[in-house]
Amino acid sequence: MRYQLYYWPGIQGRGEFVRLALEEAGANYDDVARGKSGIEKMMAMMKGAGEKRPPFAPPFLKSGRLVIAQVANILFHLGPRIGLAPKDEGQRAWLNALQLTVTDFIKEVHDTHHPVATGLYYEDQKPEALRYASGFLDERAPKYFGYFERVIDKSGGPYLLGRKISYVDLSLFQLVEGMRYAFPKAMKRIERKIPKVVAVRNRVADRPAIQAYLASERRIAFNENGIFRRYPELDK
Amino acid sequence: MRYQLYYWPGIQGRGEFVRLALEEAGANYDDVARGKSGIEKMMAMMKGAGEKRPPFAPPFLKSGRLVIAQVANILFHLGPRIGLAPKDEGQRAWLNALQLTVTDFIKEVHDTHHPVATGLYYEDQKPEALRYASGFLDERAPKYFGYFERVIDKSGGPYLLGRKISYVDLSLFQLVEGMRYAFPKAMKRIERKIPKVVAVRNRVADRPAIQAYLASERRIAFNENGIFRRYPELDK
Repeated sequence: MRYQLYYWPGIQGRGEFVRLALEEAGANYDDVARGKSGIEKMMAMMKGAGEKRPPFAPPFLKSGRLVIAQVANILFHLGPRIGLAPKDEGQRAWLNALQLTVTDFIKEVHDTHHPVATGLYYEDQKPEALRYASGFLDERAPKYFGYFERVIDKSGGPYLLGRKISYVDLSLFQLVEGMRYAFPKAMKRIERKIPKVVAVRNRVADRPAIQAYLASERRIAFNENGIFRRYPELDK
Repeated sequence: MRYQLYYWPGIQGRGEFVRLALEEAGANYDDVARGKSGIEKMMAMMKGAGEKRPPFAPPFLKSGRLVIAQVANILFHLGPRIGLAPKDEGQRAWLNALQLTVTDFIKEVHDTHHPVATGLYYEDQKPEALRYASGFLDERAPKYFGYFERVIDKSGGPYLLGRKISYVDLSLFQLVEGMRYAFPKAMKRIERKIPKVVAVRNRVADRPAIQAYLASERRIAFNENGIFRRYPELDK
Protein backbone atom coordinates (compact mmCIF):
# COMPACT_ATOMS: atom_id res chain seq x y z
CA MET A 1 0.00 0.00 0.00
CA ARG A 2 1.19 3.49 -0.83
CA TYR A 3 -0.41 6.36 1.08
CA GLN A 4 -0.86 9.95 -0.03
CA LEU A 5 -0.60 12.56 2.70
CA TYR A 6 -2.01 16.01 1.99
CA TYR A 7 -0.75 18.82 4.15
CA TRP A 8 0.70 22.32 3.91
CA PRO A 9 4.22 21.95 2.53
CA GLY A 10 6.06 24.65 4.50
CA ILE A 11 5.33 23.60 8.07
CA GLN A 12 5.35 20.62 10.39
CA GLY A 13 1.96 21.60 11.75
CA ARG A 14 -0.69 18.99 12.35
CA GLY A 15 0.60 16.93 9.44
CA GLU A 16 3.73 16.10 11.40
CA PHE A 17 1.86 13.76 13.73
CA VAL A 18 0.94 11.68 10.69
CA ARG A 19 4.39 11.97 9.09
CA LEU A 20 6.05 10.64 12.25
CA ALA A 21 3.82 7.57 12.24
CA LEU A 22 4.41 6.86 8.56
CA GLU A 23 8.16 7.33 9.01
CA GLU A 24 8.47 5.16 12.12
CA ALA A 25 6.59 2.40 10.33
CA GLY A 26 8.67 2.71 7.16
CA ALA A 27 5.43 3.11 5.22
CA ASN A 28 5.42 4.15 1.58
CA TYR A 29 3.87 7.55 1.21
CA ASP A 30 3.84 10.69 -0.87
CA ASP A 31 3.81 14.06 0.84
CA VAL A 32 1.65 15.30 -2.00
CA ALA A 33 1.56 19.04 -1.42
CA ARG A 34 5.37 19.16 -1.35
CA GLY A 35 5.50 17.82 -4.90
CA LYS A 36 4.79 19.47 -8.22
CA SER A 37 1.42 21.31 -8.29
CA GLY A 38 0.89 19.73 -4.91
CA ILE A 39 -1.03 22.55 -3.31
CA GLU A 40 -3.37 22.73 -6.30
CA LYS A 41 -4.05 19.00 -5.95
CA MET A 42 -4.75 19.42 -2.26
CA MET A 43 -7.08 22.35 -2.78
CA ALA A 44 -8.93 20.51 -5.53
CA MET A 45 -9.70 17.67 -3.14
CA MET A 46 -10.95 20.07 -0.50
CA LYS A 47 -13.16 21.91 -2.97
CA GLY A 48 -14.36 18.45 -3.68
CA ALA A 49 -15.32 18.74 -7.33
CA GLY A 50 -14.94 14.98 -7.76
CA GLU A 51 -15.04 14.19 -4.09
CA LYS A 52 -18.16 12.90 -2.36
CA ARG A 53 -16.51 13.29 1.04
CA PRO A 54 -14.50 16.50 0.93
CA PRO A 55 -12.26 17.15 3.96
CA PHE A 56 -12.82 20.30 5.97
CA ALA A 57 -9.10 21.00 6.29
CA PRO A 58 -5.66 19.39 5.91
CA PRO A 59 -4.16 17.07 6.89
CA PHE A 60 -5.93 14.26 5.14
CA LEU A 61 -4.73 10.91 3.93
CA LYS A 62 -5.63 8.93 0.88
CA SER A 63 -5.59 5.26 1.79
CA GLY A 64 -6.75 3.15 -1.11
CA ARG A 65 -10.13 4.57 -2.06
CA LEU A 66 -10.68 6.31 1.27
CA VAL A 67 -9.91 9.94 1.98
CA ILE A 68 -9.51 10.36 5.72
CA ALA A 69 -9.34 13.71 7.50
CA GLN A 70 -8.45 14.75 11.05
CA VAL A 71 -5.17 13.67 12.63
CA ALA A 72 -6.62 11.39 15.28
CA ASN A 73 -8.87 9.76 12.71
CA ILE A 74 -5.98 9.22 10.30
CA LEU A 75 -3.88 7.65 13.03
CA PHE A 76 -6.80 5.50 14.17
CA HIS A 77 -7.05 4.19 10.63
CA LEU A 78 -3.31 3.76 10.08
CA GLY A 79 -2.35 2.43 13.52
CA PRO A 80 -3.21 -1.26 13.22
CA ARG A 81 -2.23 -1.30 9.53
CA ILE A 82 1.32 -0.12 10.16
CA GLY A 83 1.99 -1.80 13.49
CA LEU A 84 1.59 1.26 15.67
CA ALA A 85 -1.63 0.35 17.46
CA PRO A 86 -3.11 -2.73 19.05
CA LYS A 87 -5.95 -4.50 17.24
CA ASP A 88 -8.18 -4.91 20.27
CA GLU A 89 -11.18 -2.55 20.16
CA GLY A 90 -10.97 -1.48 23.80
CA GLN A 91 -7.28 -0.70 23.56
CA ARG A 92 -7.83 1.23 20.36
CA ALA A 93 -10.52 3.32 22.05
CA TRP A 94 -8.12 4.09 24.90
CA LEU A 95 -5.38 5.02 22.45
CA ASN A 96 -7.83 7.22 20.55
CA ALA A 97 -8.84 9.03 23.75
CA LEU A 98 -5.16 9.76 24.40
CA GLN A 99 -4.65 10.98 20.85
CA LEU A 100 -7.69 13.24 21.09
CA THR A 101 -6.18 14.71 24.24
CA VAL A 102 -3.08 15.43 22.15
CA THR A 103 -5.41 17.13 19.64
CA ASP A 104 -6.82 19.36 22.38
CA PHE A 105 -3.32 20.20 23.59
CA ILE A 106 -2.21 21.15 20.07
CA LYS A 107 -5.15 23.51 19.63
CA GLU A 108 -4.19 25.31 22.83
CA VAL A 109 -0.58 25.55 21.66
CA HIS A 110 -1.85 27.11 18.43
CA ASP A 111 -3.91 29.58 20.41
CA THR A 112 -0.87 30.87 22.32
CA HIS A 113 -0.07 32.91 19.21
CA HIS A 114 -3.59 33.08 17.79
CA PRO A 115 -5.94 33.61 20.72
CA VAL A 116 -8.29 35.99 18.91
CA ALA A 117 -8.56 34.76 15.34
CA THR A 118 -6.82 32.35 12.99
CA GLY A 119 -7.45 34.85 10.22
CA LEU A 120 -5.37 37.59 11.84
CA TYR A 121 -1.59 37.83 12.14
CA TYR A 122 0.14 37.21 15.44
CA GLU A 123 1.20 40.86 15.37
CA ASP A 124 -2.47 41.84 15.48
CA GLN A 125 -3.14 39.91 18.68
CA LYS A 126 0.02 40.24 20.74
CA PRO A 127 -1.45 41.54 24.01
CA GLU A 128 -4.03 38.76 23.98
CA ALA A 129 -1.34 36.22 23.13
CA LEU A 130 0.70 37.33 26.11
CA ARG A 131 -2.22 36.77 28.45
CA TYR A 132 -3.14 33.46 26.85
CA ALA A 133 0.40 32.10 26.87
CA SER A 134 0.84 32.93 30.52
CA GLY A 135 -2.08 30.77 31.62
CA PHE A 136 -1.16 28.12 29.12
CA LEU A 137 2.39 27.77 30.45
CA ASP A 138 1.43 28.01 34.12
CA GLU A 139 -1.56 25.72 34.07
CA ARG A 140 -2.60 24.02 30.88
CA ALA A 141 0.70 22.64 29.58
CA PRO A 142 1.70 21.22 33.00
CA LYS A 143 -1.78 19.73 33.32
CA TYR A 144 -1.65 17.98 29.94
CA PHE A 145 1.92 16.74 30.39
CA GLY A 146 1.17 15.72 33.98
CA TYR A 147 -1.73 13.65 32.71
CA PHE A 148 0.48 11.81 30.22
CA GLU A 149 3.06 11.28 32.97
CA ARG A 150 0.37 9.63 35.08
CA VAL A 151 -0.76 7.46 32.19
CA ILE A 152 2.80 6.16 31.65
CA ASP A 153 3.09 5.55 35.36
CA LYS A 154 -0.10 3.52 35.40
CA SER A 155 0.74 1.52 32.30
CA GLY A 156 4.07 0.52 33.82
CA GLY A 157 5.87 2.19 30.91
CA PRO A 158 8.12 2.81 29.25
CA TYR A 159 5.49 3.85 26.67
CA LEU A 160 1.99 5.22 27.11
CA LEU A 161 0.38 1.84 26.48
CA GLY A 162 3.12 -0.04 28.35
CA ARG A 163 5.82 -2.11 26.72
CA LYS A 164 4.92 -1.51 23.12
CA ILE A 165 5.29 1.74 21.23
CA SER A 166 2.20 3.23 19.59
CA TYR A 167 1.43 6.28 17.52
CA VAL A 168 0.58 8.37 20.55
CA ASP A 169 4.17 8.04 21.78
CA LEU A 170 5.32 9.62 18.53
CA SER A 171 2.85 12.44 19.07
CA LEU A 172 4.12 12.93 22.61
CA PHE A 173 7.66 13.16 21.23
CA GLN A 174 6.48 15.88 18.88
CA LEU A 175 4.74 17.77 21.70
CA VAL A 176 7.96 17.81 23.75
CA GLU A 177 10.08 18.82 20.76
CA GLY A 178 7.64 21.56 19.81
CA MET A 179 7.31 22.92 23.31
CA ARG A 180 11.09 22.97 23.67
CA TYR A 181 11.31 24.95 20.46
CA ALA A 182 8.53 27.41 21.27
CA PHE A 183 8.96 27.84 25.02
CA PRO A 184 12.49 26.73 25.99
CA LYS A 185 12.47 28.51 29.35
CA ALA A 186 9.06 27.38 30.50
CA MET A 187 9.64 23.89 29.19
CA LYS A 188 12.82 23.51 31.25
CA ARG A 189 10.70 24.15 34.33
CA ILE A 190 7.82 21.91 33.20
CA GLU A 191 10.10 19.00 32.33
CA ARG A 192 11.33 18.65 35.89
CA LYS A 193 8.03 17.08 36.83
CA ILE A 194 7.54 14.78 33.87
CA PRO A 195 10.55 12.43 33.74
CA LYS A 196 8.55 9.60 32.16
CA VAL A 197 7.29 11.83 29.38
CA VAL A 198 10.86 12.96 28.70
CA ALA A 199 11.94 9.33 28.68
CA VAL A 200 9.33 8.59 25.98
CA ARG A 201 10.68 11.54 24.00
CA ASN A 202 14.22 10.13 24.31
CA ARG A 203 13.23 6.60 23.33
CA VAL A 204 11.40 7.87 20.26
CA ALA A 205 14.34 10.10 19.32
CA ASP A 206 16.63 7.06 19.49
CA ARG A 207 14.65 4.91 17.13
CA PRO A 208 16.55 4.35 13.87
CA ALA A 209 13.67 5.24 11.55
CA ILE A 210 12.98 8.45 13.46
CA GLN A 211 16.68 9.36 13.55
CA ALA A 212 16.89 8.89 9.80
CA TYR A 213 13.75 10.94 9.29
CA LEU A 214 14.87 13.82 11.52
CA ALA A 215 18.22 13.97 9.67
CA SER A 216 16.53 13.98 6.26
CA GLU A 217 15.14 16.88 4.31
CA ARG A 218 11.71 15.34 4.72
CA ARG A 219 11.66 16.78 8.24
CA ILE A 220 10.73 20.44 7.85
CA ALA A 221 12.40 22.69 10.44
CA PHE A 222 10.26 24.37 13.09
CA ASN A 223 9.37 27.86 11.97
CA GLU A 224 7.09 30.79 12.74
CA ASN A 225 4.34 29.68 10.37
CA GLY A 226 3.68 26.43 12.18
CA ILE A 227 1.88 25.54 15.39
CA PHE A 228 4.95 25.72 17.62
CA ARG A 229 6.41 29.20 17.19
CA ARG A 230 9.32 30.77 19.01
CA TYR A 231 8.20 34.19 20.14
CA PRO A 232 10.52 34.84 23.09
CA GLU A 233 8.15 37.42 24.58
CA LEU A 234 5.60 34.65 25.22
CA ASP A 235 8.08 32.39 27.03
CA LYS A 236 8.62 33.01 30.68
CA MET B 1 -26.41 -3.21 28.08
CA ARG B 2 -26.72 -0.28 30.46
CA TYR B 3 -24.32 2.61 29.98
CA GLN B 4 -23.03 5.05 32.57
CA LEU B 5 -22.41 8.58 31.36
CA TYR B 6 -20.20 10.82 33.47
CA TYR B 7 -20.53 14.54 32.92
CA TRP B 8 -21.03 17.77 34.82
CA PRO B 9 -24.62 17.76 36.09
CA GLY B 10 -25.57 21.43 35.68
CA ILE B 11 -24.89 21.97 32.00
CA GLN B 12 -25.55 20.50 28.59
CA GLY B 13 -21.94 21.06 27.61
CA ARG B 14 -20.03 18.44 25.72
CA GLY B 15 -21.99 15.69 27.44
CA GLU B 16 -25.09 16.71 25.53
CA PHE B 17 -23.75 15.29 22.28
CA VAL B 18 -23.61 11.89 23.96
CA ARG B 19 -26.95 12.30 25.73
CA LEU B 20 -28.69 13.04 22.43
CA ALA B 21 -27.35 9.85 20.89
CA LEU B 22 -28.35 7.72 23.87
CA GLU B 23 -31.81 9.30 23.92
CA GLU B 24 -32.47 8.95 20.21
CA ALA B 25 -31.50 5.30 20.41
CA GLY B 26 -33.62 4.67 23.48
CA ALA B 27 -30.55 3.26 25.19
CA ASN B 28 -30.48 2.49 28.89
CA TYR B 29 -28.12 4.80 30.68
CA ASP B 30 -27.41 6.52 33.96
CA ASP B 31 -26.38 10.15 33.98
CA VAL B 32 -24.16 9.35 36.93
CA ALA B 33 -23.08 12.78 38.11
CA ARG B 34 -26.69 13.90 38.34
CA GLY B 35 -27.39 11.18 40.89
CA LYS B 36 -26.49 10.89 44.54
CA SER B 37 -22.78 11.54 45.23
CA GLY B 38 -22.45 11.60 41.48
CA ILE B 39 -19.76 14.22 41.21
CA GLU B 40 -17.65 12.41 43.79
CA LYS B 41 -17.95 9.22 41.74
CA MET B 42 -16.94 11.07 38.60
CA MET B 43 -13.95 12.72 40.25
CA ALA B 44 -12.82 9.42 41.74
CA MET B 45 -12.67 7.88 38.28
CA MET B 46 -10.68 10.80 36.95
CA LYS B 47 -8.22 10.68 39.82
CA GLY B 48 -8.02 7.07 38.81
CA ALA B 49 -7.21 5.40 42.10
CA GLY B 50 -8.59 2.14 40.82
CA GLU B 51 -8.51 3.08 37.19
CA LYS B 52 -5.72 1.97 34.86
CA ARG B 53 -7.01 4.27 32.13
CA PRO B 54 -8.11 7.49 33.82
CA PRO B 55 -9.90 10.00 31.58
CA PHE B 56 -8.41 13.47 31.19
CA ALA B 57 -11.79 15.17 31.48
CA PRO B 58 -15.54 14.54 31.29
CA PRO B 59 -17.53 13.41 29.46
CA PHE B 60 -16.66 9.74 29.62
CA LEU B 61 -18.78 6.65 29.24
CA LYS B 62 -18.63 3.35 30.99
CA SER B 63 -19.56 0.66 28.51
CA GLY B 64 -19.18 -2.77 30.03
CA ARG B 65 -15.64 -2.90 31.31
CA LEU B 66 -14.44 -0.03 29.13
CA VAL B 67 -14.18 3.58 30.19
CA ILE B 68 -14.21 5.76 27.09
CA ALA B 69 -13.37 9.47 27.05
CA GLN B 70 -13.73 12.20 24.44
CA VAL B 71 -17.07 12.87 22.76
CA ALA B 72 -16.10 11.75 19.26
CA ASN B 73 -14.53 8.61 20.66
CA ILE B 74 -17.60 7.81 22.75
CA LEU B 75 -19.87 8.28 19.74
CA PHE B 76 -17.55 6.20 17.56
CA HIS B 77 -17.87 3.40 20.08
CA LEU B 78 -21.61 3.76 20.60
CA GLY B 79 -22.65 4.45 17.02
CA PRO B 80 -22.82 0.96 15.54
CA ARG B 81 -24.03 -0.52 18.85
CA ILE B 82 -27.09 1.71 19.07
CA GLY B 83 -27.94 1.96 15.39
CA LEU B 84 -26.63 5.46 14.82
CA ALA B 85 -23.65 4.65 12.62
CA PRO B 86 -22.93 2.37 9.69
CA LYS B 87 -20.77 -0.68 10.32
CA ASP B 88 -18.52 -0.24 7.28
CA GLU B 89 -15.03 0.92 8.27
CA GLY B 90 -14.72 3.56 5.56
CA GLN B 91 -18.10 5.08 6.36
CA ARG B 92 -17.26 5.11 10.04
CA ALA B 93 -14.02 6.96 9.32
CA TRP B 94 -15.94 9.54 7.30
CA LEU B 95 -18.50 9.93 10.08
CA ASN B 96 -15.69 10.29 12.61
CA ALA B 97 -14.05 13.03 10.53
CA LEU B 98 -17.34 14.90 10.52
CA GLN B 99 -17.77 14.46 14.26
CA LEU B 100 -14.22 15.70 14.88
CA THR B 101 -15.10 18.78 12.85
CA VAL B 102 -18.03 19.26 15.23
CA THR B 103 -15.51 18.95 18.09
CA ASP B 104 -13.38 21.73 16.59
CA PHE B 105 -16.44 23.90 16.13
CA ILE B 106 -17.50 23.40 19.76
CA LYS B 107 -14.09 24.43 21.03
CA GLU B 108 -14.34 27.67 19.07
CA VAL B 109 -17.82 28.30 20.45
CA HIS B 110 -16.41 27.82 23.94
CA ASP B 111 -13.64 30.28 23.18
CA THR B 112 -16.09 33.04 22.26
CA HIS B 113 -16.53 33.57 26.00
CA HIS B 114 -13.20 32.15 27.12
CA PRO B 115 -10.62 33.32 24.60
CA VAL B 116 -7.85 33.90 27.15
CA ALA B 117 -8.12 31.16 29.74
CA THR B 118 -10.59 28.49 30.84
CA GLY B 119 -9.50 29.19 34.40
CA LEU B 120 -10.70 32.80 34.34
CA TYR B 121 -14.25 34.13 34.41
CA TYR B 122 -15.87 35.57 31.33
CA GLU B 123 -15.94 38.92 33.12
CA ASP B 124 -12.14 38.85 33.23
CA GLN B 125 -11.79 38.49 29.46
CA LYS B 126 -14.61 40.54 27.99
CA PRO B 127 -12.64 42.75 25.59
CA GLU B 128 -10.89 39.68 24.19
CA ALA B 129 -14.20 37.84 23.95
CA LEU B 130 -15.67 40.67 21.94
CA ARG B 131 -12.85 40.50 19.42
CA TYR B 132 -12.96 36.72 19.28
CA ALA B 133 -16.73 36.49 18.88
CA SER B 134 -16.70 38.98 16.04
CA GLY B 135 -14.36 36.89 13.89
CA PHE B 136 -16.12 33.73 14.96
CA LEU B 137 -19.54 34.96 13.84
CA ASP B 138 -18.30 36.58 10.63
CA GLU B 139 -16.03 33.83 9.43
CA ARG B 140 -15.68 30.67 11.44
CA ALA B 141 -19.30 29.76 12.17
CA PRO B 142 -20.41 30.36 8.56
CA LYS B 143 -17.42 28.34 7.36
CA TYR B 144 -18.23 25.34 9.57
CA PHE B 145 -21.95 25.43 8.83
CA GLY B 146 -21.25 26.00 5.14
CA TYR B 147 -19.10 22.90 5.14
CA PHE B 148 -21.87 20.77 6.65
CA GLU B 149 -24.31 22.25 4.12
CA ARG B 150 -22.02 21.13 1.33
CA VAL B 151 -21.68 17.65 2.83
CA ILE B 152 -25.46 17.23 2.95
CA ASP B 153 -25.68 18.48 -0.60
CA LYS B 154 -23.13 15.94 -1.78
CA SER B 155 -24.67 13.04 0.13
CA GLY B 156 -28.04 13.77 -1.46
CA GLY B 157 -29.52 14.33 1.99
CA PRO B 158 -31.62 14.67 3.89
CA TYR B 159 -29.00 13.70 6.50
CA LEU B 160 -25.23 14.15 6.50
CA LEU B 161 -24.62 10.58 5.41
CA GLY B 162 -27.61 10.54 3.07
CA ARG B 163 -30.85 8.75 3.75
CA LYS B 164 -30.08 7.38 7.17
CA ILE B 165 -29.70 9.38 10.34
CA SER B 166 -26.45 9.08 12.28
CA TYR B 167 -25.05 10.53 15.48
CA VAL B 168 -23.49 13.47 13.68
CA ASP B 169 -26.96 14.69 12.67
CA LEU B 170 -27.88 14.85 16.34
CA SER B 171 -24.72 16.86 16.99
CA LEU B 172 -25.58 19.22 14.16
CA PHE B 173 -29.02 19.71 15.71
CA GLN B 174 -27.33 20.64 18.97
CA LEU B 175 -24.98 23.08 17.21
CA VAL B 176 -27.93 24.88 15.61
CA GLU B 177 -29.89 24.94 18.87
CA GLY B 178 -26.89 26.19 20.79
CA MET B 179 -26.00 28.86 18.28
CA ARG B 180 -29.61 30.06 18.23
CA TYR B 181 -29.51 30.33 22.00
CA ALA B 182 -26.14 32.08 22.22
CA PHE B 183 -26.21 34.26 19.13
CA PRO B 184 -29.82 34.68 17.97
CA LYS B 185 -29.12 37.72 15.80
CA ALA B 186 -26.05 36.40 14.05
CA MET B 187 -27.61 32.98 13.64
CA LYS B 188 -30.62 34.43 11.85
CA ARG B 189 -28.22 35.81 9.28
CA ILE B 190 -26.11 32.65 9.08
CA GLU B 191 -29.11 30.36 8.65
CA ARG B 192 -30.16 32.02 5.43
CA LYS B 193 -27.31 30.25 3.67
CA ILE B 194 -27.66 26.82 5.21
CA PRO B 195 -31.17 25.54 4.46
CA LYS B 196 -30.09 21.89 4.43
CA VAL B 197 -28.47 22.20 7.83
CA VAL B 198 -31.65 23.78 9.18
CA ALA B 199 -33.65 20.96 7.61
CA VAL B 200 -31.51 18.43 9.50
CA ARG B 201 -32.17 20.38 12.68
CA ASN B 202 -35.93 20.23 11.99
CA ARG B 203 -35.95 16.54 11.19
CA VAL B 204 -34.06 15.74 14.38
CA ALA B 205 -36.38 17.97 16.43
CA ASP B 206 -39.35 16.04 15.03
CA ARG B 207 -38.16 12.63 16.02
CA PRO B 208 -40.34 11.18 18.78
CA ALA B 209 -37.50 10.12 21.07
CA ILE B 210 -35.88 13.53 20.79
CA GLN B 211 -39.19 15.32 21.36
CA ALA B 212 -39.76 13.25 24.49
CA TYR B 213 -36.24 13.97 25.67
CA LEU B 214 -36.43 17.71 25.09
CA ALA B 215 -39.71 17.87 27.01
CA SER B 216 -38.31 15.90 29.93
CA GLU B 217 -36.32 17.11 32.89
CA ARG B 218 -33.41 15.08 31.62
CA ARG B 219 -32.76 17.91 29.16
CA ILE B 220 -30.94 20.60 31.11
CA ALA B 221 -31.78 24.13 29.93
CA PHE B 222 -29.13 26.21 28.21
CA ASN B 223 -27.42 28.45 30.74
CA GLU B 224 -24.41 30.67 31.25
CA ASN B 225 -22.21 27.94 32.66
CA GLY B 226 -22.29 25.83 29.54
CA ILE B 227 -20.60 26.06 26.18
CA PHE B 228 -23.35 28.05 24.48
CA ARG B 229 -23.89 31.19 26.53
CA ARG B 230 -26.16 34.11 25.82
CA TYR B 231 -24.11 37.24 26.30
CA PRO B 232 -25.98 39.76 24.12
CA GLU B 233 -22.92 41.99 23.82
CA LEU B 234 -21.17 39.27 21.82
CA ASP B 235 -24.02 38.82 19.35
CA LYS B 236 -24.13 41.15 16.40
